[in-house]
Amino acid sequence: TPETAERTAVPGVATGLAVTGAGGEVLFIEATAMEGEPGLTLTGQLGDVMKESAQIALSYLRSHGAELGIDAASLAKRRIHVHFPAGAVPKDGPSAGITMVTALASLASGRPVRPEVGMTGEVTLAGRVLPIGGVKQKLLAAHRAGLTEVIIPARNEPDLDDVPEAVREALTIHTLGDVADVLELALRPAQERAPALAAA
Amino acid sequence: TPETAERTAVPGVATGLAVTGAGGEVLFIEATAMEGEPGLTLTGQLGDVMKESAQIALSYLRSHGAELGIDAASLAKRRIHVHFPAGAVPKDGPSAGITMVTALASLASGRPVRPEVGMTGEVTLAGRVLPIGGVKQKLLAAHRAGLTEVIIPARNEPDLDDVPEAVREALTIHTLGDVADVLELALRPAQERAPALAAA
Amino acid sequence: TPETAERTAVPGVATGLAVTGAGGEVLFIEATAMEGEPGLTLTGQLGDVMKESAQIALSYLRSHGAELGIDAASLAKRRIHVHFPAGAVPKDGPSAGITMVTALASLASGRPVRPEVGMTGEVTLAGRVLPIGGVKQKLLAAHRAGLTEVIIPARNEPDLDDVPEAVREALTIHTLGDVADVLELALRPAQERAPALAAA
Amino acid sequence: TPETAERTAVPGVATGLAVTGAGGEVLFIEATAMEGEPGLTLTGQLGDVMKESAQIALSYLRSHGAELGIDAASLAKRRIHVHFPAGAVPKDGPSAGITMVTALASLASGRPVRPEVGMTGEVTLAGRVLPIGGVKQKLLAAHRAGLTEVIIPARNEPDLDDVPEAVREALTIHTLGDVADVLELALRPAQERAPALAAA
Amino acid sequence: TPETAERTAVPGVATGLAVTGAGGEVLFIEATAMEGEPGLTLTGQLGDVMKESAQIALSYLRSHGAELGIDAASLAKRRIHVHFPAGAVPKDGPSAGITMVTALASLASGRPVRPEVGMTGEVTLAGRVLPIGGVKQKLLAAHRAGLTEVIIPARNEPDLDDVPEAVREALTIHTLGDVADVLELALRPAQERAPALAAA
Amino acid sequence: TPETAERTAVPGVATGLAVTGAGGEVLFIEATAMEGEPGLTLTGQLGDVMKESAQIALSYLRSHGAELGIDAASLAKRRIHVHFPAGAVPKDGPSAGITMVTALASLASGRPVRPEVGMTGEVTLAGRVLPIGGVKQKLLAAHRAGLTEVIIPARNEPDLDDVPEAVREALTIHTLGDVADVLELALRPAQERAPALAAA
Ligand SMILES: [Ca+2]
Ligand SMILES: [Ca+2]
Ligand SMILES: [Ca+2]
Ligand SMILES: [Ca+2]
Ligand SMILES: [Ca+2]
Ligand SMILES: [Ca+2]
Ligand SMILES: [Ca+2]
Ligand SMILES: [Ca+2]
Ligand SMILES: [Ca+2]
Ligand SMILES: [Ca+2]
Ligand SMILES: [Ca+2]
Ligand SMILES: [Ca+2]
Repeated sequence: TPETAERTAVPGVATGLAVTGAGGEVLFIEATAMEGEPGLTLTGQLGDVMKESAQIALSYLRSHGAELGIDAASLAKRRIHVHFPAGAVPKDGPSAGITMVTALASLASGRPVRPEVGMTGEVTLAGRVLPIGGVKQKLLAAHRAGLTEVIIPARNEPDLDDVPEAVREALTIHTLGDVADVLELALRPAQERAPALAAA
Repeated sequence: TPETAERTAVPGVATGLAVTGAGGEVLFIEATAMEGEPGLTLTGQLGDVMKESAQIALSYLRSHGAELGIDAASLAKRRIHVHFPAGAVPKDGPSAGITMVTALASLASGRPVRPEVGMTGEVTLAGRVLPIGGVKQKLLAAHRAGLTEVIIPARNEPDLDDVPEAVREALTIHTLGDVADVLELALRPAQERAPALAAA
Repeated sequence: TPETAERTAVPGVATGLAVTGAGGEVLFIEATAMEGEPGLTLTGQLGDVMKESAQIALSYLRSHGAELGIDAASLAKRRIHVHFPAGAVPKDGPSAGITMVTALASLASGRPVRPEVGMTGEVTLAGRVLPIGGVKQKLLAAHRAGLTEVIIPARNEPDLDDVPEAVREALTIHTLGDVADVLELALRPAQERAPALAAA
Repeated sequence: TPETAERTAVPGVATGLAVTGAGGEVLFIEATAMEGEPGLTLTGQLGDVMKESAQIALSYLRSHGAELGIDAASLAKRRIHVHFPAGAVPKDGPSAGITMVTALASLASGRPVRPEVGMTGEVTLAGRVLPIGGVKQKLLAAHRAGLTEVIIPARNEPDLDDVPEAVREALTIHTLGDVADVLELALRPAQERAPALAAA
Repeated sequence: TPETAERTAVPGVATGLAVTGAGGEVLFIEATAMEGEPGLTLTGQLGDVMKESAQIALSYLRSHGAELGIDAASLAKRRIHVHFPAGAVPKDGPSAGITMVTALASLASGRPVRPEVGMTGEVTLAGRVLPIGGVKQKLLAAHRAGLTEVIIPARNEPDLDDVPEAVREALTIHTLGDVADVLELALRPAQERAPALAAA
Repeated sequence: TPETAERTAVPGVATGLAVTGAGGEVLFIEATAMEGEPGLTLTGQLGDVMKESAQIALSYLRSHGAELGIDAASLAKRRIHVHFPAGAVPKDGPSAGITMVTALASLASGRPVRPEVGMTGEVTLAGRVLPIGGVKQKLLAAHRAGLTEVIIPARNEPDLDDVPEAVREALTIHTLGDVADVLELALRPAQERAPALAAA
């Protein structure tokens, strides 16, 4: 969609799928890096579980950067700021884990996220993708927003039964168990990459 | 107006539009920079959302300074203090986001803010201008205070229907979606600039 | 008065005017500087607004020292301690702002505060003097305590109507809008100065 | 089991036994190390007792590394992150103590944890294994999950009476009082080790 | 008294007078200094006002050491620990101010406190002694404990009317307004001094 | 007893006497030291009074090490971790003061604590031993646990009347007022010492 394309045009922005009181929703997670004291600044009225999730995403990339072909030093030596718009809406839960890993990997590699892809899934420190809730609402929201590909946790495959067939047909649905596979799928190929974030 | 002209005569002060219990209001956001441990000091009894908003404004400028022609290092290497008078009145919400970006960009560039301009809008880390509430009251207040130009988020354009025609005529109203456009419009041209804040 | 003269004999002490449950009151704000980690130590059971007020006072002087002829480095490189006696009485509000600026400027310049002057007024980061409450009680207290000159915010001038004529006559009342004018009036001339606080 | 084998294939992951409202459960504690300010990052919604337990585990290894043949400097000079999936489930209690020691010792030595082993037990700073609750449910869960060996505290031996005989027969049950014996039993032999975590 | 003599035999211990639910009481404030990060460690279940009082006492000595003949650097460069036994009894209020100044000055100068002297009084950052409550009970307690000299604030002189004549006669009562006079009176002369605390 | 002998075999472990809801109890305080940022890590769900007690114990040794023949630098330059098993049981009060001093002195000197000795008593910063409660239950517990010597505060001597004569006969009871005497009695002689903790 135009909005998704515009929002994800720069490295560091990934498209997540969330559930709110008003049903499923597409949200854009923004990450940036600055010179300064290394560490993580988190904004967007995040709850404790979501803050921990961001730490897990960053630690995963910092300790697995080499095998993923990502320059982890560019994340380790800078101040990283991750923001979840809109700023006044409280948010919580672990299900944005893989979206945060993707936003941060995009930032570190300079490879933008593919604009047609939305995703949801908890991530562990070792890179496992754990199941989350709200699959049906999230896929309906992805479809409504014009996304054409979604990534969900492997262990959520049974939940696809509840998704209307028209939506399942319209979307390419990836069920993944390893966050390394999420990155391979969601980031644009390296040859399309924007100038990578230089290490400090 | 005389007050606005006087308040915004020095770089680092921008004119915001807010809504309080008593209707719309014009407020002056003041920013200054000092030698010392880099970071952000915030005063004016700000709530959590507004504090996060200030961090977003600063991170946006620090990571986009180059493309905006702003010396971001002057913000990164100093202690930045942002104050919202009056000091005893609690304030919150994300809608001062673009005003804080403007005040900080003015401080870093040495270009004062144009005194006839007031503004309101949430900002994201990637520089998007998100919609806010209270457009009608804010424009009435801007008009009452003698401002002649206002900046509101592009996605608030529909709210202009509720603004009395006399006010809409009297004001030049800019509906913007990218904070870079806000800065271009609100800061005085570089040739009029005061001595820029030297980098530490 | 003897007490005021004794208390303000050394640089770093300024005479403020406050309102408590028991009416107006004269209080002495004490500031001192020490070698050590730069920053601000505040004592006297201060509330949040008053603590922010002290930060504003210090930031104002640090960023405007040059134009005021004050050695701001002596404030920036030391640990500054500001105390509001008596220590067990909770205090809050922004109205001691200009008194704190005066005490700190006295400390940094080595110029004692004129003992016959009491003052009240909120200060902003850019040095504006904003209006406060309790003008009548404060001036009565100043008069009772033997002070002969008081400084109040320009925008509080209308409140002078409520002050008994005998008190207005007895006092020289200055209504000021810029804290630079407060300092010019309240500090003893430089030639009378005590040895200035040497920069670290 | 396949899941246990997969989860514990890399050094730094150990299999714990816990009791929740829904009975016994197998959980995987993940530890990783990064360049950065030394210290401990803990995620997984841990309660105070469990956080202290992690500090005890780390201090035990740092002060006993030499006698255990573990390179404690690799733990002392890095930022250590320990995560307990799933991220949104609150967890507390001291009974994961020996599992954390095992995960951290695995990380520091590069020796993966034997995938067939699950464990539970409080640890003290001096390396004693103290008794815990829920032995019956924990052993039932271990059996259900396909584990074939479990480690419990020596002082919990009497609780084995309550465990169904079929489960006791199917499992090799080790009752230990010293955490050094836990490590000897749970870590794969050094000759099978993955590349050890190099000291910083 | 034997206890007072024993407690105050080393530099850094001063005898205070307090009021508790059970009447007046003599207490011994202990101060010591260690190599380490400069700053103040306070123990004895102190309330906020008493903690601030300790900061005031330390800042007073650090900024007035030269004129008092006290080596303030020995306080500024070390970690100072002040303890109020007994450790489990909550304590608060500003009235131990001059006792803390005395204990710290004794520590810094190596001059023990005279064992026959007890004291009470609030101190300000500029060294003024402010009035406190409970004079009668405090003097009764001093007398009961065998002290023969007490120091109280000058502005508490009127409270001596309430003290039984026998107690007033038995005690030498000093009413002082400047903490420099307290130190001159309470510390043993320099020629009797123990080895001074060497500056770091 | 076998347990006491085993627990106190290494330097850094001392045997305390406590009172819980279930009567008196013997507990083992464990201390260890690591390279790292100097300071105190406390675990075992300690309350505020007990945490302060640990700071007092450490400060006492750091400032009196020379006269006690203990290498205080080995405590000052390392991270000290003190743990009170069992980890999930909340503990508070000042009465473990002398036990903590003993554990830390044992750690610093390499002299193990004599396994037959249990102790209880508050300690002050200057090394005084102050009285505590629960003498009867604590001595009964010491006796039950097979200890043969106990140390209690001098000022608790009157409480011995309440201890059954058989217990008093079986135990050697030391009533001490100075923590230096506690150390002399409780630590094994230097010639039996384990390798001392080398200073960093
Ligand atoms: Ca969720
Ligand atoms: Ca499909
Ligand atoms: Ca708003
Ligand atoms: Ca118009
Ligand atoms: Ca007049
Ligand atoms: Ca448990
Ligand atoms: Ca049993
Ligand atoms: Ca078996
Ligand atoms: Ca008091
Ligand atoms: Ca007398
Ligand atoms: Ca107790
Ligand atoms: Ca006996």
